[in-house]
Amino acid sequence: MSTLPAPLEELISELGRLPGIGPKSAQRIALALVLRGPEVSMRLAGAIARAVENVRRCERCGQLADAELCPVCQDPQRDASVVLVVEGDRDVWAFERARGFRGTYHVLGGSISPMDGVGPEQLAIGALLRRLEREPIEEVIIATSPTVEGETTATYLARVLEGRVRLSRLATGVPVGGDLEYVDEVTLARAVEGRHELRPGRPHGH
Amino acid sequence: MSTLPAPLEELISELGRLPGIGPKSAQRIALALVLRGPEVSMRLAGAIARAVENVRRCERCGQLADAELCPVCQDPQRDASVVLVVEGDRDVWAFERARGFRGTYHVLGGSISPMDGVGPEQLAIGALLRRLEREPIEEVIIATSPTVEGETTATYLARVLEGRVRLSRLATGVPVGGDLEYVDEVTLARAVEGRHELRPGRPHGH
Repeated sequence: MSTLPAPLEELISELGRLPGIGPKSAQRIALALVLRGPEVSMRLAGAIARAVENVRRCERCGQLADAELCPVCQDPQRDASVVLVVEGDRDVWAFERARGFRGTYHVLGGSISPMDGVGPEQLAIGALLRRLEREPIEEVIIATSPTVEGETTATYLARVLEGRVRLSRLATGVPVGGDLEYVDEVTLARAVEGRHELRPGRPHGH
Repeated sequence: MSTLPAPLEELISELGRLPGIGPKSAQRIALALVLRGPEVSMRLAGAIARAVENVRRCERCGQLADAELCPVCQDPQRDASVVLVVEGDRDVWAFERARGFRGTYHVLGGSISPMDGVGPEQLAIGALLRRLEREPIEEVIIATSPTVEGETTATYLARVLEGRVRLSRLATGVPVGGDLEYVDEVTLARAVEGRHELRPGRPHGH
């Protein structure tokens, strides 16, 4: 609509670039931003700026952090001998919400997907191997999503890590074909509890 | 989650205040803002700031504007003799999208709702009466919503404006493209009441 004030048109267009925000939502949000108190809206603008400037990757586990180490890696209460390997940041958030896991994480930054041109070398697998050399890690829990790409990644990791550390895979409490971040918290917590050891020659431990 | 970096936590919380954005959406959007290029995200922060600073109300019709007058009131092509009276900004946007109206608007800023403590004096009705005195307005189309509050407001306006100007109300009837069986009974009854004669050679009665 060319009859909207230009700054509003610009705001609606920028909001429309966000994931899950359609044109109608963008309009509704833009209107709310303009109509509510300027302090509230400027708080959002400031929060975006601060997050963009200060959020980076944890130098140890690769998850989002606002310092050299993420809050989990900084926490001395977390069990450094167990590392849960996930594909992405939102998987970490899902486990943290579930509160069933007290170890540390390792974020791969994706999963092996030949279709999308993602091979093992694009993932933080080298960093994981270096952690195994330096840190007193006793167990690695492979918590990639139960999707084709996630299972491929799990199999690859199992092969690479075999013999170096005790390996386990999330229990089959996780519904097959689902995205980890949409799994309910009880199921996630149970899946950590019921994890099973990966044995050589039986890549999925079944 | 206390294990998220503070700037990210802040961003998620601010995003969660926006209409229609739940906790999961707020997380997904925050992650996108942090992960995509900083220029793109800062463009959104800038757009919010510019909209909040520059968007105000049109001094004539009360809709959002970035100058004394809104783009519609500034446009000499719009017919100043017809004023369409609506409750809010998004009603204006809906008519502009529909492109069926070439007159000007008047935004009431709500509807009469004794339940919510909104009386006529809270709405821009006085401003409308002043416009009738100053401007060459020939017709006022009352386009409040077909809700209880909207109808109450329409009835009030009709009483106040009676005798001062030609008054009309939006047609009520069956929405175009809708399935008859899903149309509510009141709308159906009104559509029968307001039926128009079909004339030979003018198949849709136009």
